[in-house]
Amino acid sequence: MEKKNLLIAQSGGPSAAINATLAGVIAKAQQSPEIGRILGSRHGIEGVLTETYVDLTDFADLERLKATPAMALGSCRFKLPADFTDPIYGRIEASLADMEVGYFLYIGGNDSMDTVDKLSEYYAGRPGAPAVIGLPKTIDNDLPGCDHTPGYGSAARYLAMTMEELIRDTAIYALPSVTIVEIMGRNAGWLTLAAGLPRLRGGQKPDFIALPEVPFDEKDFLAKLRTRIRESQNIIVAVSEGIRDLNGDYVGSNTKSGVLDSFGHLYLSGVGKYLEGLVKHEIGCKVRSIEVNLMQRCAGHAASQTDLEEAFAAGEFGVEMAVRGESGRMAVLLRREGEPYHFYCESVDVKACANGERLVPERWFDLEDAAVQKEICAYLLPLMKGDVPQFRDEYGFADYVIF
Amino acid sequence: MEKKNLLIAQSGGPSAAINATLAGVIAKAQQSPEIGRILGSRHGIEGVLTETYVDLTDFADLERLKATPAMALGSCRFKLPADFTDPIYGRIEASLADMEVGYFLYIGGNDSMDTVDKLSEYYAGRPGAPAVIGLPKTIDNDLPGCDHTPGYGSAARYLAMTMEELIRDTAIYALPSVTIVEIMGRNAGWLTLAAGLPRLRGGQKPDFIALPEVPFDEKDFLAKLRTRIRESQNIIVAVSEGIRDLNGDYVGSNTKSGVLDSFGHLYLSGVGKYLEGLVKHEIGCKVRSIEVNLMQRCAGHAASQTDLEEAFAAGEFGVEMAVRGESGRMAVLLRREGEPYHFYCESVDVKACANGERLVPERWFDLEDAAVQKEICAYLLPLMKGDVPQFRDEYGFADYVIF
Repeated sequence: MEKKNLLIAQSGGPSAAINATLAGVIAKAQQSPEIGRILGSRHGIEGVLTETYVDLTDFADLERLKATPAMALGSCRFKLPADFTDPIYGRIEASLADMEVGYFLYIGGNDSMDTVDKLSEYYAGRPGAPAVIGLPKTIDNDLPGCDHTPGYGSAARYLAMTMEELIRDTAIYALPSVTIVEIMGRNAGWLTLAAGLPRLRGGQKPDFIALPEVPFDEKDFLAKLRTRIRESQNIIVAVSEGIRDLNGDYVGSNTKSGVLDSFGHLYLSGVGKYLEGLVKHEIGCKVRSIEVNLMQRCAGHAASQTDLEEAFAAGEFGVEMAVRGESGRMAVLLRREGEPYHFYCESVDVKACANGERLVPERWFDLEDAAVQKEICAYLLPLMKGDVPQFRDEYGFADYVIF
Repeated sequence: MEKKNLLIAQSGGPSAAINATLAGVIAKAQQSPEIGRILGSRHGIEGVLTETYVDLTDFADLERLKATPAMALGSCRFKLPADFTDPIYGRIEASLADMEVGYFLYIGGNDSMDTVDKLSEYYAGRPGAPAVIGLPKTIDNDLPGCDHTPGYGSAARYLAMTMEELIRDTAIYALPSVTIVEIMGRNAGWLTLAAGLPRLRGGQKPDFIALPEVPFDEKDFLAKLRTRIRESQNIIVAVSEGIRDLNGDYVGSNTKSGVLDSFGHLYLSGVGKYLEGLVKHEIGCKVRSIEVNLMQRCAGHAASQTDLEEAFAAGEFGVEMAVRGESGRMAVLLRREGEPYHFYCESVDVKACANGERLVPERWFDLEDAAVQKEICAYLLPLMKGDVPQFRDEYGFADYVIF
């Protein structure tokens, strides 16, 4: 059997689990007799264009790689052109041929799957062309065609843990106050659901959970807030960065025009800062906003063991798909029906994922409904299960894999 | 021997270690034959005024209390008047007499020690008056008269860990970018030093560490940033919220006037947002600012075992001080000279701590100096040592003590 080389790359935004998928790919490729060298491309498809490769054939430090957050190979945000006669395709083809790549695996989110789709179409029907396989990754959990995405469980664990701590922190004063916690998610509210878990599991806080899928009515919010603040001090609002008003516009976007920062540039605040101003103006109590920011996507120290194991398994499964001759397809995570929780990998057409979005289902919009709360917990908790063995010294400093 | 009751209260801002001090007080008081009931006042001195007490005499769940962040008894921000004829003193005296309090211990930072100072002065020379003792707490590490404060080691551990993760997160793209990480500290740079540890221990990042103690020269910063961005992509700036310009004004404060938010209020951004605008305007590369915000002061999940043990010991020591008849004094943490690290508790006049501030020493201002880096690491690392046993379920949810 003629061995071919495998090329692996990472693309899009970071997560705590994306290197676990890389580790799964390396582990499986090392065991596959069809595969010769294992190459990592630096900065996604850009490393293919610049022929910047790392040889991972003998890389053995897989557990440490699994526990390293963000992309050990680096990432890119790069959209391939729609026109296959564009010279960029010839350059990619030449680079892959140079390196005798028979299997090209690309780990990423919605946009990265577009690259997998286009590249596999470009090669379609060409004898001896490399197999092009997509591997899922996004903390946003918004890839269509799957039950959930690697990276989401770890981000969810971090967010729930952080929300619990913020609830304790803000509870200390016997004063009315509002704390607005802004969470990532332009269109999908999956991460905000996770931050809402302390309440969805039966607690009192956060008092409000605002998803981008549900139109946000400022008047209604303020009315409910006025009522709530009489019942309970230290109000907490968990809000997705992408909530929209009743007209479908991002909340705060219409009032921002005309506000310039110190340098004369248009001041673009997040929704948290906007709501902070709104509450200060309309209610007048102590209010602060917190943007969880990048911390929620790279918190390896709070990663979910289940998430990393599944991410690893998706990587292994992708190598199997490539070796058995699939291309233009993607490995996804699904769950078996019933209890206890059990996931499995499946191969789906990458077109089903590329450029699409999977939102929080409408039947979950009523977060006050006990049946909905139960269903969300049943969905989310298994993905967050288990501590990750940490490669840290006694002072907490991590020993990351850096290629 | 006539037993007297002990009253304990917490005041000021939260930390991950303040309940460990409370646990130490309870543990020692339970073993002290001089002490009858152990009472906790809700919301600091306010609970004394409203006679809102929790009976902690038989409280046994000390390890779980130690691992609970923020104030289990609640907090307050309350300054006693300077005039001892103010009726508030009579109310406090009546409340303490009602509860037969012989020992009053107050855990807090600089402002809270002012309460200890005034109350002990008010009682001075009065036979049978309660002993008033201060116990230290502040993530800011700025209490005079000590080596360090309980709460600082845990916040430092969280900040160093988070900075390491942000370094990985921001390193993924092969593009020039600047990330500004704003850390708490209006006057003292101790927390920012902790966030700078990945570099101070010999790494490359964060590229800049800006302390409030060192005047911040915008022109010089921009010049160095322009140079640095040519040598290294993904620049990270760790900056204290309270850095001041060469005139001693808070950086950005002079240019903020006139900028109104969407509601017509003066827009008060933090220094991170200000520097983000500055870099965007002057350099024009990708730039973002991150405010670590409340997360740095309540991150029990990343607490330092050393910090919690020392906080506990300070609580025990405070009870010993009270029982042996001290008043108007405070327990502080000091360190023995030489290696290995060893701390001890000492009693100091609370006047030495009340309302004062301990800043980063001038001999540490040159953070490029290898000897300075070594000295800072020798100071800081021992305080961050050791993981804390967590009271969490398999999904990461904490089982906190809530009175």
